[in-house]
Amino acid sequence: MNPNNTGTIEINGKEYNTFTEPPVAMAQERAKTSFPVREMTYFLDGGEKNTLKNEQIMEEIERDPLFNNDNYYDLNKEQIRELTMERVAKLSLFVRDQPEDDIKKRFALIGIADMGTYTRLGVHYGLFFGAVRGTGTAEQFGHWISKGAGDLRKFYGCFSMTELGHGSNLAGLETTAIYDEETDEFIINTPHIAATKWWIGGAAHTATHTVVFARLIVKGKDYGVKTFVVQLRNINDHSLKVGISIGDIGKKMGRDGIDNGWIQFTNVRIPRQNLLMKYTKVDREGNVTQPPLAQLTYGSLITGRVSMASDSHQVGKRFITIALRYACIRRQFSTTPGQPETKIIDYPYHQRRLLPLLAYVYALKMTADEVGALFSRTMLKMDDLKPDDKAGLNEVVSDVKELFSVSAGLKAFSTWACADVIDKTRQACGGHGYSGYNGFGQAYADWVVQCTWEGDNNILTLSAGRALIQSAVALRKGEPVGNAVSYLKRYKDLANAKLNGRSLTDPKVLVEAWEVAAGNIINRATDQYEKLIGEGLNADQAFEVLSQQRFQAAKVHTRRHLIAAFFSRIDTEAGEAIKQPLLNLALLFALWSIEEDSGLFLREGFLEPKDIDTVTELVNKYCTTVREEVIGYTDAFNLSDYFINAPIGCYDGDAYRHYFQKVNEQNPARDPRPPYYASTLKPFLFREEEDDDICELDEE
Amino acid sequence: MNPNNTGTIEINGKEYNTFTEPPVAMAQERAKTSFPVREMTYFLDGGEKNTLKNEQIMEEIERDPLFNNDNYYDLNKEQIRELTMERVAKLSLFVRDQPEDDIKKRFALIGIADMGTYTRLGVHYGLFFGAVRGTGTAEQFGHWISKGAGDLRKFYGCFSMTELGHGSNLAGLETTAIYDEETDEFIINTPHIAATKWWIGGAAHTATHTVVFARLIVKGKDYGVKTFVVQLRNINDHSLKVGISIGDIGKKMGRDGIDNGWIQFTNVRIPRQNLLMKYTKVDREGNVTQPPLAQLTYGSLITGRVSMASDSHQVGKRFITIALRYACIRRQFSTTPGQPETKIIDYPYHQRRLLPLLAYVYALKMTADEVGALFSRTMLKMDDLKPDDKAGLNEVVSDVKELFSVSAGLKAFSTWACADVIDKTRQACGGHGYSGYNGFGQAYADWVVQCTWEGDNNILTLSAGRALIQSAVALRKGEPVGNAVSYLKRYKDLANAKLNGRSLTDPKVLVEAWEVAAGNIINRATDQYEKLIGEGLNADQAFEVLSQQRFQAAKVHTRRHLIAAFFSRIDTEAGEAIKQPLLNLALLFALWSIEEDSGLFLREGFLEPKDIDTVTELVNKYCTTVREEVIGYTDAFNLSDYFINAPIGCYDGDAYRHYFQKVNEQNPARDPRPPYYASTLKPFLFREEEDDDICELDEE
Ligand SMILES: Cc1cc2nc3c(=O)[nH]c(=O)nc-3n(C[C@H](O)[C@H](O)[C@H](O)COP(=O)(O)OP(=O)(O)OC[C@H]3O[C@@H](n4cnc5c(N)ncnc54)[C@H](O)[C@@H]3O)c2cc1C
Ligand SMILES: Cc1cc2nc3c(=O)[nH]c(=O)nc-3n(C[C@H](O)[C@H](O)[C@H](O)COP(=O)(O)OP(=O)(O)OC[C@H]3O[C@@H](n4cnc5c(N)ncnc54)[C@H](O)[C@@H]3O)c2cc1C
Repeated sequence: MNPNNTGTIEINGKEYNTFTEPPVAMAQERAKTSFPVREMTYFLDGGEKNTLKNEQIMEEIERDPLFNNDNYYDLNKEQIRELTMERVAKLSLFVRDQPEDDIKKRFALIGIADMGTYTRLGVHYGLFFGAVRGTGTAEQFGHWISKGAGDLRKFYGCFSMTELGHGSNLAGLETTAIYDEETDEFIINTPHIAATKWWIGGAAHTATHTVVFARLIVKGKDYGVKTFVVQLRNINDHSLKVGISIGDIGKKMGRDGIDNGWIQFTNVRIPRQNLLMKYTKVDREGNVTQPPLAQLTYGSLITGRVSMASDSHQVGKRFITIALRYACIRRQFSTTPGQPETKIIDYPYHQRRLLPLLAYVYALKMTADEVGALFSRTMLKMDDLKPDDKAGLNEVVSDVKELFSVSAGLKAFSTWACADVIDKTRQACGGHGYSGYNGFGQAYADWVVQCTWEGDNNILTLSAGRALIQSAVALRKGEPVGNAVSYLKRYKDLANAKLNGRSLTDPKVLVEAWEVAAGNIINRATDQYEKLIGEGLNADQAFEVLSQQRFQAAKVHTRRHLIAAFFSRIDTEAGEAIKQPLLNLALLFALWSIEEDSGLFLREGFLEPKDIDTVTELVNKYCTTVREEVIGYTDAFNLSDYFINAPIGCYDGDAYRHYFQKVNEQNPARDPRPPYYASTLKPFLFREEEDDDICELDEE
Repeated sequence: MNPNNTGTIEINGKEYNTFTEPPVAMAQERAKTSFPVREMTYFLDGGEKNTLKNEQIMEEIERDPLFNNDNYYDLNKEQIRELTMERVAKLSLFVRDQPEDDIKKRFALIGIADMGTYTRLGVHYGLFFGAVRGTGTAEQFGHWISKGAGDLRKFYGCFSMTELGHGSNLAGLETTAIYDEETDEFIINTPHIAATKWWIGGAAHTATHTVVFARLIVKGKDYGVKTFVVQLRNINDHSLKVGISIGDIGKKMGRDGIDNGWIQFTNVRIPRQNLLMKYTKVDREGNVTQPPLAQLTYGSLITGRVSMASDSHQVGKRFITIALRYACIRRQFSTTPGQPETKIIDYPYHQRRLLPLLAYVYALKMTADEVGALFSRTMLKMDDLKPDDKAGLNEVVSDVKELFSVSAGLKAFSTWACADVIDKTRQACGGHGYSGYNGFGQAYADWVVQCTWEGDNNILTLSAGRALIQSAVALRKGEPVGNAVSYLKRYKDLANAKLNGRSLTDPKVLVEAWEVAAGNIINRATDQYEKLIGEGLNADQAFEVLSQQRFQAAKVHTRRHLIAAFFSRIDTEAGEAIKQPLLNLALLFALWSIEEDSGLFLREGFLEPKDIDTVTELVNKYCTTVREEVIGYTDAFNLSDYFINAPIGCYDGDAYRHYFQKVNEQNPARDPRPPYYASTLKPFLFREEEDDDICELDEE
């Protein structure tokens, strides 16, 4: 009856309609996957053992009634704050009892299902703990553990760095810590409102203690910003300590589960021992010892950046799974009259919108793992360092420097990439992507702060760009540089490299393309830098002039890193059965990256205009190839429906049924009249018009 | 005392600190503007009369207690829905009493301050009304007006097009309207769950009537999708009519003020007269007359698109104002030791992040006005059309076609641009951009649905691209084409044009650059199209193969349109005093657009690699120039603090004071213990550990 044949689909002689077909279509799609999905999961997780552990933890979370997320998207700020507190309490028990690696896995999984809880825990275990461990002595760390910081008993720490007037520029913080020699105390003070500590996660409701960043002032001399532990609330009744004012920062774009607050200190006295003294020391007489390298002090800040690269993969995989599953069951428009409508995944344009993002999400994982491992190795070295081991110290210092710049670029571009994935996958789901119950809106609002906190992405990128130029300068002087920029050494051979008819599907050639592009940008910027210095500018001024170039350098260098790490991980770790499917993704990622930035390759002369056509054809080709196994690729992420938490992205593909059901469960059919019917709607809609009450004038 | 000199600033011999300086800095910045801001406002508003009217309406809104937005960002879904209803009721009174132009102005202004209210009104006055006026006869229109549709008395209309399973593909909708000759009625029915009307704004709480898109079936023959008016609720008690089921769609990413619902029809009988019969007619005997051109039926859909281009400007100007004002008072990092920290607006990189967006927001206005005028002219022609005026009909049909494709591309790229403006300006404000009280989060969540509804942006773009290829095909056959693509006529002269040493600051050259780029893309795609047709594909199939090219074509063509319209409006309307400031913006916009898409111009050979360096230098140069007068450019938008609704973006620049105050007003200092202290926090944080209760075994 319907000439557009939109309603009915025949599969193996059986008829389905728009409502009943999706799960059948999903089963068909799933059957297309030719590679062993389970093996892909092991590859992604770094081995079967990890997969099994993840699955165990996922089950524990899902079964716990406290982690039921059925009404997650309908909670208001007050409700989500309380629930988050309960979840934090529950999770802290695991921290006490379980091995560190399991805890990390659990947190990472929670981070997919409930970003607020993840962060509220992170405020204490990541930021507070990290600062005390990273900048306190072993004795100090032990002291705060003995007070309850280890298992959150009579203790909850927060991290007071940012002020209303200062964020990125730590050196500009204005809170003061003046040493009072008479009493052997520091006096912590907020000089004016713009120096109020601001945004402090955990401060508004939870924290009993905080690490404070404040200017150390001894005998009138300002030693710059150092870290101190300050007690905020009295133990047991949770009232504020004398001299502490705290307010609630209230509504945020997202992450309402975290109780961000502001803190003002009014001449709060703390014992001298509360200065965290691993690097900076003040003795009873007010003698001050400064650290050998400022960056060591902030080493703990790297932790967050490294884990954000990994979070970007975790959250990205959730949303690319939803959009690709939906694309496999959603039909819209028929391209051939009389034929059923086309699945949107079969539109070449839709493939181009989503499949490069799938490849990107895979790529993020490889690089995050690589940098994560580098980070762990460096931290171990740092912990093992003997106080008088000069050579060892130098090595650690240079590793930390490398980590700083690598993690800066990676944090920035991964968190942006993930934001982009959430945004683009939402749009790829049309109107249903805008439903609260499919999770995109909430996740975007929660996610994007990752681009701002723990190092604003733009500032990180600029500083990564600065480090790249510094490396090039070092190389020119014959000094050693870190691994991440070692390709710059071969720069002279690369500078004028061209494709020259070589294959654009050869990983080596693709990596080379990116090395040429990155190398040229960095070296051109370095030329300019040296010229500016020659003209008498100081380093800061010269870098300022080159900010746009620094951004570009960091961008292209980081993309190179992602591409190289992807190919290299396939090379070293992928079994035969999954090698080709992984290569297809990696090639798609590298080629699409070139297409997106084609001006770069044309400009550098590595490619000619006709090569860009080839790149486009290849992107199309790999889209077509990857499209066939999208369900395999996304199933390999191994997220259960609990973690997906979006009815249109359910495993079984029965999207309309789950979605309709979800909407109705959360909004049970009640009175067709809204709650404000009597108060507002009725008096308006069913009003009687009043006559204009004009007094008649006797004008005759 | 502070070697970084971050805290204090000296201005005219007087010292200010981080907290007190901002308003002084703002006054200084404001004084820099060299052009007459008021004249710029007139230019933007299209004349002094419009400005005065806008100001009058703004004052009326601001003073109305019902429109007080002090706690806007803290309202939950239930509260915002009720408030929105009250505001809709209030605004409907203006619709009754005021001239159409004033109403439009009022709605547009409301759209800046409260997008939900704007849309909830729009559901009736835009969508329902538009459909009845556009596809009903004059008698039918009059009938529904007489029922109360004109002033929302005992009448509230909604618009039921989309179904759970179908959105963009109107032709695939599955709701049926079967003509029952016996009773002279249509029977409206929802055949299965996926055919449930979905997303219908106003359905859940408010609507008494709806326009339904349903398949017209007469004597077993399916005539495709037509529009019908159906009553949903009984008048006076607001209960559901027999056969109507309605549910609440609940939580959305944003726009919670609108009561979107789903509707199922179970054999609902409506009189034959409820088919909207301007184009499609069914008589008593079941004879069906079809319209001359399907597109005329959907002509009313263009209204929304045209106004969305204008909305993009309206909302974009609010957020670019906030970010630029903040950038003028926020200091972070000192570039020269001992000097005060730098205002972030003075970082070249920050200028590049924001100033091209400022130019973009200006550009949107020029094009939106131009297309708006074209639209009004066409609608007038359409209304004046005599039934037997063949020539007139042809002209209108060709105008409507042109409007369809122009408005499609413009709607897509403007709404995306505005989303980008909100997102990037938020990031430019660092952490404070994430505060609920600065409005970015709410606005983004509310805004982005504009990219999806009333024509999904991607689909619109593809269809605009299709129209461009069709125009090129027509041109090749010597047929006439619309104004918007007339530059394709000169294509042969342009195809191989190069910059050839001409100035990149000559508007003519810049417009030519974009015409060459757009022309080449369109013509290459047209070559491919003709080749595919030659190979035996039908048009749909050929267009499918060329989807990526269609997207590119629409993108570049639309950018050309924005650039050309900007220069031309300056040329024809700007007085001397504001000409240069406007040109600076337009040049920045055109040059930055080239830089962003440099691959395009290199590929087409219009520019050479060294020209790209010139473009970059010029972008830098115009950023520096425009930077000096940013406060003037943004003040010219003439939005009061009420419409800005972001303390960090206030007119007086006293950002920290307003922000601190706002946060504390909305979150008054109460108990330092959270509401869930007794229930959740205390039992956890102050728990006594239980001993592990292990039964001792007598194992000896
Ligand atoms: C939800 C949330 C939770 C947070 N939790 C905590 C917490 O628990 N503890 C804590 O201490 N902090 C916390 N923060 C603060 C966060 O770390 C800062 O917001 C972040 O570091 C950015 O600093 P800022 O906001 O001061 O931005 P700014 O440094 O003021 O930057 C503003 C803008 O200017 C640009 N800019 C600045 N300097 C330069 C330059 N030199 N060159 C070019 N551009 C420049 C930036 O890119 C940015 O766009 C939180 C923030 C948020 C939003
Ligand atoms: C908040 C809200 C309010 C709304 N209010 C109303 C209302 O009052 N009345 C009403 O009738 N509707 C309403 N809508 C529905 C809205 O108009 C539709 O969601 C919109 O038209 C998109 O249709 P869809 O969701 O079915 O997406 P689909 O058409 O299913 O598209 C899904 C995805 O597939 C892609 N795609 C589809 N076809 C193709 C193709 N041929 N080629 C390439 N890609 C393709 C699209 O780009 C999109 O990314 C509302 C929606 C929302 C979110």
